[in-house]
Amino acid sequence: MSTTATLSVPTPSAAFETSTVERRAVGEHDVLIDIAYSGICHSDIHQARNEWAEGIFPMVPGHEIAGTVAEVGPGVTKYAVGDRVGVGCFVDSCRECENCRAGEEQYCLKGEVPTYNGKDYDGVETYGGYSKQIVVHEDYTLGIPEGIELDVAAPLLCAGITTYSPLHHWGAGPGKKVAIVGMGGLGHLGVKIAAAMGAEVTVLSQSLKKEEDGRRLGADHYAATSDPETFESLAGTFDLIVNTVAATLPVDKYLSLLRLDGAMVNVGIPADADTYHAFSLAGMRRSLAGSKIGGIRETQEMLDFCAEHGIGAEVEVLAPEPAVIDEAYERVVGSDVRYRFVIDMAALEG
Amino acid sequence: MSTTATLSVPTPSAAFETSTVERRAVGEHDVLIDIAYSGICHSDIHQARNEWAEGIFPMVPGHEIAGTVAEVGPGVTKYAVGDRVGVGCFVDSCRECENCRAGEEQYCLKGEVPTYNGKDYDGVETYGGYSKQIVVHEDYTLGIPEGIELDVAAPLLCAGITTYSPLHHWGAGPGKKVAIVGMGGLGHLGVKIAAAMGAEVTVLSQSLKKEEDGRRLGADHYAATSDPETFESLAGTFDLIVNTVAATLPVDKYLSLLRLDGAMVNVGIPADADTYHAFSLAGMRRSLAGSKIGGIRETQEMLDFCAEHGIGAEVEVLAPEPAVIDEAYERVVGSDVRYRFVIDMAALEG
Repeated sequence: MSTTATLSVPTPSAAFETSTVERRAVGEHDVLIDIAYSGICHSDIHQARNEWAEGIFPMVPGHEIAGTVAEVGPGVTKYAVGDRVGVGCFVDSCRECENCRAGEEQYCLKGEVPTYNGKDYDGVETYGGYSKQIVVHEDYTLGIPEGIELDVAAPLLCAGITTYSPLHHWGAGPGKKVAIVGMGGLGHLGVKIAAAMGAEVTVLSQSLKKEEDGRRLGADHYAATSDPETFESLAGTFDLIVNTVAATLPVDKYLSLLRLDGAMVNVGIPADADTYHAFSLAGMRRSLAGSKIGGIRETQEMLDFCAEHGIGAEVEVLAPEPAVIDEAYERVVGSDVRYRFVIDMAALEG
Repeated sequence: MSTTATLSVPTPSAAFETSTVERRAVGEHDVLIDIAYSGICHSDIHQARNEWAEGIFPMVPGHEIAGTVAEVGPGVTKYAVGDRVGVGCFVDSCRECENCRAGEEQYCLKGEVPTYNGKDYDGVETYGGYSKQIVVHEDYTLGIPEGIELDVAAPLLCAGITTYSPLHHWGAGPGKKVAIVGMGGLGHLGVKIAAAMGAEVTVLSQSLKKEEDGRRLGADHYAATSDPETFESLAGTFDLIVNTVAATLPVDKYLSLLRLDGAMVNVGIPADADTYHAFSLAGMRRSLAGSKIGGIRETQEMLDFCAEHGIGAEVEVLAPEPAVIDEAYERVVGSDVRYRFVIDMAALEG
């Protein structure tokens, strides 16, 4: 066991404070990671505020983790001390179900072990990346290639794979027209990745405020969804729409933008139900789908792809101070960040 | 021009009556068909009662047509007098859009010409299969192979292709678990076709009333959706659900029956919107899709497949009398038919 400094929320919706948690002793196949940066995901806020299921408190959020290996267990073969590594949204899975065997551990039928606000299979609470160190099994640790700085790499572990996986699974590439709905933490990475895959990329955002950024990141087109003309001029256009917005939408209007066999994939999960009319699907054999992060193998593939294409998140680096994180949460809720906060965990005292 | 006897509805929701319509002269590439049988599709009733868009009256319904060729135009190469042929839901399409060029004429971007209750591209109203004869371009005429009787073939032209197409498109076959929701006109053919494709087939019906029939037609399993236990015991089971029910459903419950990457395809179109929660899709990368009949090439493939596997509809043959059709409509609305009515059009006087 070892003690590590953290930024934690003692009770639901409380202000952040500095504290410590115990990490397990480094086991046979474990790596101990010195965390350099930890991204702030909107889902951290939902969980810290108990807006989803009942959370486990105190809570140490953070599932966009980048750092370096400080120690390895005797059986570790994949990593060595000093390696640049990352950890995403889960730190274990059953390894036996058909989905785990297929490398789709994010859909583990037993339920994968979340990086924080969960319990491992022994019943021990998990604490996330807003901390100085973490111990993770090597099989659930990713390698961060040279060529991506650790600060801009951290958000790839959730926001990056969440957009990469549906783009890859639904075949984004040359000759395909892809729309990314929302230009936030997920959307801005979706634009970069879809463009690097060779697709023709359109951003669908509420306004044109971020158009310059969108085009700089790789978008070929940029349209405002607040303008009804957008839905007329782009009707029947897209092969794939990746919807990163975690709010209910006029689904039928978005479906009308898809051509024959097009798919709209939701990666944002609104709290409320959406409605659709069956004809919006049957009229052009369209699909409405959803996708959740990615498996370990695919996450590594995504990191390698991003390194190859020089892709990292656009980040604002935060000092590891409770009041700074509290303020950052308010700014995320107000969509006031371009485009992802990462916390400089190495600077946390302790 | 020629005059043909019909069963028609003079005004919305009126009783059927016998009357006549004019058919165009047999053109260069046209075939004149002596109609033997015309199926009754639930959508005939919606249209005859003006329950969808404003209909064109008098209306001659019928888009499940089977008969023999009586005459061919001088340029016809595909059919000869005496050939057994069928006509489905459309009799022309633009032939130029990307969907027509892909052989998916049912999704024609200009709008395909419906077999009845529509207008052809010259503005002439179309009249359907509740008639003695029809004139159709050879490219929109299907061949009915020897080995399927014309009465049981007629419903294949709509109900058959409507279920075959999604089963084929979404890969039903050996090793796949397929559920058919609803044991009606569409569903009973879906069961036969999915079983012939080699899939493991489960019928999901409101009750177990038709279980014996379902198993006789090829279902391996039969479950009642009125029993909550069904949704527990079958959770995460299916690769594909083809939903033939034209009523709103508890979509999330049905989605929970899909395994990773499973799809639920709606071929029934309820009048009202459905609701779903995005997590039902994202949690297992599921898709909710829709499908509409099939293209000409695929419809021919379906007919050939059905002939090869000895598949026809289970039919009740009706005399071509107005009062008989009126009563049959009531029985369809009351789900009191096993499993498709076809009208003996050859027996119509005139």
